[in-house]
Amino acid sequence: MKIDCRLVPAFADAKELRGKTAVVIDVLRATTTIITALNNGARQVIPVATVAEAWPLYNELKEHSPVLLAGERDTKIIPGFHLGNSPFEFQRETVADKTIILTTTNGAQSLVRVAEADEILIAAFLNARTVAQTLVRNGRDIEIVCSGSEMHFSLEDTLCAGYIVHEILALFPEAELSDSVRMALLLLKEYGPDMQKAVSRCEHATVLIANDFSADVVYCGMTNIFHNVPVSRQNSITLNNNNNNNY
Amino acid sequence: MKIDCRLVPAFADAKELRGKTAVVIDVLRATTTIITALNNGARQVIPVATVAEAWPLYNELKEHSPVLLAGERDTKIIPGFHLGNSPFEFQRETVADKTIILTTTNGAQSLVRVAEADEILIAAFLNARTVAQTLVRNGRDIEIVCSGSEMHFSLEDTLCAGYIVHEILALFPEAELSDSVRMALLLLKEYGPDMQKAVSRCEHATVLIANDFSADVVYCGMTNIFHNVPVSRQNSITLNNNNNNNY
Repeated sequence: MKIDCRLVPAFADAKELRGKTAVVIDVLRATTTIITALNNGARQVIPVATVAEAWPLYNELKEHSPVLLAGERDTKIIPGFHLGNSPFEFQRETVADKTIILTTTNGAQSLVRVAEADEILIAAFLNARTVAQTLVRNGRDIEIVCSGSEMHFSLEDTLCAGYIVHEILALFPEAELSDSVRMALLLLKEYGPDMQKAVSRCEHATVLIANDFSADVVYCGMTNIFHNVPVSRQNSITLNNNNNNNY
Repeated sequence: MKIDCRLVPAFADAKELRGKTAVVIDVLRATTTIITALNNGARQVIPVATVAEAWPLYNELKEHSPVLLAGERDTKIIPGFHLGNSPFEFQRETVADKTIILTTTNGAQSLVRVAEADEILIAAFLNARTVAQTLVRNGRDIEIVCSGSEMHFSLEDTLCAGYIVHEILALFPEAELSDSVRMALLLLKEYGPDMQKAVSRCEHATVLIANDFSADVVYCGMTNIFHNVPVSRQNSITLNNNNNNNY
């Protein structure tokens, strides 16, 4: 099993993902929000790259079932949308049994970019250990994709990648590691194990705190509070009910 | 002075480089080769992204002055070209007073991508300290661009970025550092100060060694053997004669 990590969601050729499991991370905040929404009963999350794609999809889907438009630009809710990108907006009373169309600056973009992978898992600190267990169980080569910030490295995503790899190695020490994975582990050695402290000092955390999202930053640094892994299939992200067994 | 580092040459928007000095690094081997060629008397190096662009430019320029076509794909010389991308091919007797058109898989691509920067410097371990001195002297915000490997992180480029930042901080400790720069410094702490050993263990070094370029790998890890900095202007890379004063 080979493990590789993309520090930003850039690929010379999307075909590189074929035959692999892609693990998409956007700790602050898209994947944290997706995991939260699904654990609070949302039916599915559909990531789209642009606001222009979100509206016609919303108009089409709402004819058949309850749908919410969610997303941010510059950390703030998009005009006319029901929800922003703060995980605290995705409570059970708001999202249960609903489809959520989500467009965010970074995370939704990387979810769209990994479409060629054989399997796509959604990860954050919230479910990192279960992601690692799932990856070891399915045994494919792994491409961890850090969403970063507008094609720029973000420490919190790579730290989360390092933590997932650390958990994989505890179960499967023979895994082959790329240069970028070695670096993610180095980051974990330096900034772990207090993830909340590390996340709160990252560049994007500073921006979120300045925009009154301090509670989000604290929540996004919590580890292993969920024991399931959302999966993206045909651009629909869901939790299987028998998640602990299959994913 | 703010210092930032791109771990692969991907930009959400090329305009982000305006007003900044871009420092392009491709230790294995494009920037090492460019620095070597110019120090061996080459008149200029013109980077181009594709082989298809190299040929018509060659046919045009050779009417006026001596020109060599250089470059690689998959580490090997391109059919019909005069030179590959090994620095040892760029000896004085071969390159003096000549224009070199260079196309490589990674370094030449990132040189083309940073065209919007106010100033573009060419760096590798060979001239890292002088690059740092130049950056402190000119005082602009800095975007260090690691060429990586086909949009993938490469340890040797980021290690070189960390070393340049370390040298900057010795002269100008107040510089503001981004998350990616903090990470590059962490890499230096882990793998420095023996750059040759660190470079020889990187992923791309393994590929070069398997293709009989072991001597290149050793040479590319040598630090501060040149005390000048090539500059790219209108896509022509040159050494100023009064380089130690101005660049």
